[in-house]
Amino acid sequence: MGAAGGAGAMFATMGALGLAPTARASAGYEPPRRSDFTLTGRGAAKVVILGGGVAGLATAYELTKGGYDCTVLEAADRPGGRNFTVRGGTVQTDVRGNTQTAAFSEGIYLNAGPARIAQWMVTLDYCRELGVPIEVFTNTNASGFVFNEAAGMQQPQRIRTAKADVYGYVSELLAKATDQGALDSELTATDKERLLDFLRDWGAIGDKAAGRRYVGSSRRGYSTDPGAGDQAGVPLGPVPSLAQTLADGAGRYFSFDFTYEQAMLMFQPVGGMDRIPMALARVLGPQRLRLGTEVTRIVNAPDKVGVTFLERNGKEGHLVADFCVAALPPQVLARIPHNLGADVQAALGKWQLGTAAKIGLEYRSRWWETDYRIYGGITDTDLDIERLWYPSHGFHGARGLLVNYCYGNHARQYGELSPDRRVQRAVEQGVKIHGAKHRTELANSFSVAWHLVPHLESAWAMPPLGTPAYQLLGKPAGRVYFAGDWLTHLTAWQAGAFESARLVVRRLHERVLSR
Amino acid sequence: MGAAGGAGAMFATMGALGLAPTARASAGYEPPRRSDFTLTGRGAAKVVILGGGVAGLATAYELTKGGYDCTVLEAADRPGGRNFTVRGGTVQTDVRGNTQTAAFSEGIYLNAGPARIAQWMVTLDYCRELGVPIEVFTNTNASGFVFNEAAGMQQPQRIRTAKADVYGYVSELLAKATDQGALDSELTATDKERLLDFLRDWGAIGDKAAGRRYVGSSRRGYSTDPGAGDQAGVPLGPVPSLAQTLADGAGRYFSFDFTYEQAMLMFQPVGGMDRIPMALARVLGPQRLRLGTEVTRIVNAPDKVGVTFLERNGKEGHLVADFCVAALPPQVLARIPHNLGADVQAALGKWQLGTAAKIGLEYRSRWWETDYRIYGGITDTDLDIERLWYPSHGFHGARGLLVNYCYGNHARQYGELSPDRRVQRAVEQGVKIHGAKHRTELANSFSVAWHLVPHLESAWAMPPLGTPAYQLLGKPAGRVYFAGDWLTHLTAWQAGAFESARLVVRRLHERVLSR
Repeated sequence: MGAAGGAGAMFATMGALGLAPTARASAGYEPPRRSDFTLTGRGAAKVVILGGGVAGLATAYELTKGGYDCTVLEAADRPGGRNFTVRGGTVQTDVRGNTQTAAFSEGIYLNAGPARIAQWMVTLDYCRELGVPIEVFTNTNASGFVFNEAAGMQQPQRIRTAKADVYGYVSELLAKATDQGALDSELTATDKERLLDFLRDWGAIGDKAAGRRYVGSSRRGYSTDPGAGDQAGVPLGPVPSLAQTLADGAGRYFSFDFTYEQAMLMFQPVGGMDRIPMALARVLGPQRLRLGTEVTRIVNAPDKVGVTFLERNGKEGHLVADFCVAALPPQVLARIPHNLGADVQAALGKWQLGTAAKIGLEYRSRWWETDYRIYGGITDTDLDIERLWYPSHGFHGARGLLVNYCYGNHARQYGELSPDRRVQRAVEQGVKIHGAKHRTELANSFSVAWHLVPHLESAWAMPPLGTPAYQLLGKPAGRVYFAGDWLTHLTAWQAGAFESARLVVRRLHERVLSR
Repeated sequence: MGAAGGAGAMFATMGALGLAPTARASAGYEPPRRSDFTLTGRGAAKVVILGGGVAGLATAYELTKGGYDCTVLEAADRPGGRNFTVRGGTVQTDVRGNTQTAAFSEGIYLNAGPARIAQWMVTLDYCRELGVPIEVFTNTNASGFVFNEAAGMQQPQRIRTAKADVYGYVSELLAKATDQGALDSELTATDKERLLDFLRDWGAIGDKAAGRRYVGSSRRGYSTDPGAGDQAGVPLGPVPSLAQTLADGAGRYFSFDFTYEQAMLMFQPVGGMDRIPMALARVLGPQRLRLGTEVTRIVNAPDKVGVTFLERNGKEGHLVADFCVAALPPQVLARIPHNLGADVQAALGKWQLGTAAKIGLEYRSRWWETDYRIYGGITDTDLDIERLWYPSHGFHGARGLLVNYCYGNHARQYGELSPDRRVQRAVEQGVKIHGAKHRTELANSFSVAWHLVPHLESAWAMPPLGTPAYQLLGKPAGRVYFAGDWLTHLTAWQAGAFESARLVVRRLHERVLSR
């Protein structure tokens, strides 16, 4: 792969400079090649892959590069698993029997599962390799709002305003403590000078003569913007007190953007996240990827694996292969009869299932752009909708889709409601941020509570890292390998599915070559 | 305009909520309408506009909506003024006689002038109205580097790493001071608790038992990323000391993203910033926009304005109009013979000219993506190239363009060099950040030092705000109005040119209607 060559060249360059570059988890990964078998004289094996989510598709995609004879069995009628993009016409029936049909307009979509890609993640390499165009995912925006109702905030505040106030007061406090000599045991005179210079610029506070005070700044924003002639602009006021700023608790959202997984810049495929599984499915073709095919039994034998399944028409089928890769969620896999052993079965029960829900709201106008000058990003709240995403694409278009994204108990609570009631409740919350248009401009909606989605039944499964159970399923049970983001340190990230697939492919290929 | 209707609706909604929305500087602006004259019985006037930069084009565009008979005279062979996008084939000769011809590949461009648009700026309204598609401009990126060579930094650091360290130590210091009681006169017990909770999360520091110490965190990044199986990832180390962190001075760049003008999210037109003037020029047509036409005299008379000009072929021409809008840089206007008075001439000399240079470097591969996992954003340095921009578009493409952007003395120094020497010098600096590929992958280049560009001769002109000179040119001199970002509180921003145009159009139209 070109990327691997690039990484090699990078190390050479960076070594010379004394820089420490970041190696991707699967740096040095080489997919199987047909020539591997030509050289060894061994033929490629037959592999059956259970689950057509990203881990399963990627496993088949990588193995196929080496000439393996792969078959992916996917229970649902679409590939991708939790990588699920809802568009106009998408129909889904949940495990409770609620059926939704998306009436979204042309160009409107909801990435119900994964929706953002960090720059360092291997997912971007697959976008490049598969020719899936990408664009910025707007994970943070100074123009978004923060609204902590339970904390007693009187009204939503722009993130830029909240940040100016928090950083202003933090600077004021630390500068005062420094001036007082409270940190003399920590700081030399030079350190103090540097720290105070930094705080003055970073917090926009007064100098020593001005008592180091934070009294607001243009960073908070304006009630009337600067303009032409004598329009100097009217800075936004009044500045809340230090006590109020701390009570509002807006600062609790700032560190989100510092994490390695979420820091901007983030990316998304143009047109929907499922461009990735669709591209993988296209390469595999319908011969290798069998949709609507539910696995009902796995039998591991000394020299082969047998898999029984039910097709859409209710017909039972069987497949015999040299190896199997089980790329299903652990709790789903645990329900399929198998002979992999009681220890495997027990281990599968050790993953902690996560809950998350997304509610997509299509509006007939992009009022957040025209009325609030918000072009993408996220509004943070302590409401039960938690976070509200503005669209990262289609700027200035006729319509757009807002996403409510919540986890845990909130997601479970929304899941208990009918799809209509979910929307009603989410809109009630959103009106607190945006006013009437959050309700009156609503055109269509679609919601996904992941614990209720057939064949998946959870948003993610948190692994018991460092335990025997995790170690056990990291190895094959006979001829059956396990794959998925649940077997990685990147759980709940699509990148985890890709990394897991690469690891399983490498191990399986090594085993085949060493026969 | 739809935008104005939206604003009205917004105020109604927000008023009900007790929110204070931001009004754009020209909120409530209504362009002249043909029906204004139908109702009054007065005919639209003839207006000659000097300068086909954004202010001049927008003035003509807005006046034309009301049926005014507009002619824009532009000295250069292209519209846009400082809104200048360089593509393959662009030729420019500077005032020193240096001629450059851009050999950029298909799809590669350099926005040599304005390059970013804040969400609140009226520029976005023009993009919407003119049908110019926009995309995110990547103004900040946690994966970019900071490198302060003069401060003694041993090697470039990722912005995410620098931020984790600075915020970590700021948190540690403030938490310690708080624990010690140094801030007891500022903080109640509840305040302290809230502050310490915030600092622990925001700075990723230890709790009280752990001495509130900052010892690094995964926010710094990894030397090996987390991945599948037992690949937990190797966090980047070692963590520099507090003294070293302060000495490195990376924190001086953090406040850039807090300013009202530069905070993400920022935007750019798809395909190049000059999509905006080109769209305006298309609406105006060649009858109204005369390129290659240099103004040589302005005569203000009691009932008309006369303008003399030289056409490309050396032929002198004259235009007589009811009004004139001079939308030229002040120092360029000052050189044109006129009868607007000594006070006008003196006032024109009060603007402070700014210097800036951009050096665009096209590379035959996007090694910053493959080798460094940098997809857009900016690297900050104390080198003479100052800032280095990675492209905000064309991700995963074959080629891409990096931009060096510097101001003031650095820009003057680069301006003194031949175009080839500028590139040589800029590459020498860039190699310190990126290593050999910054040189070896270079394919083409183009540089613009704005003080050397004919007919413009400065990057911007800072107004003497609040002085009689500023007041004087804010009003017409007889029948001659002045327009440009230099007559606004948004100097050096394209939005200033638009706001100035709107202000002049409103005043001129009011005058015509009140005749």
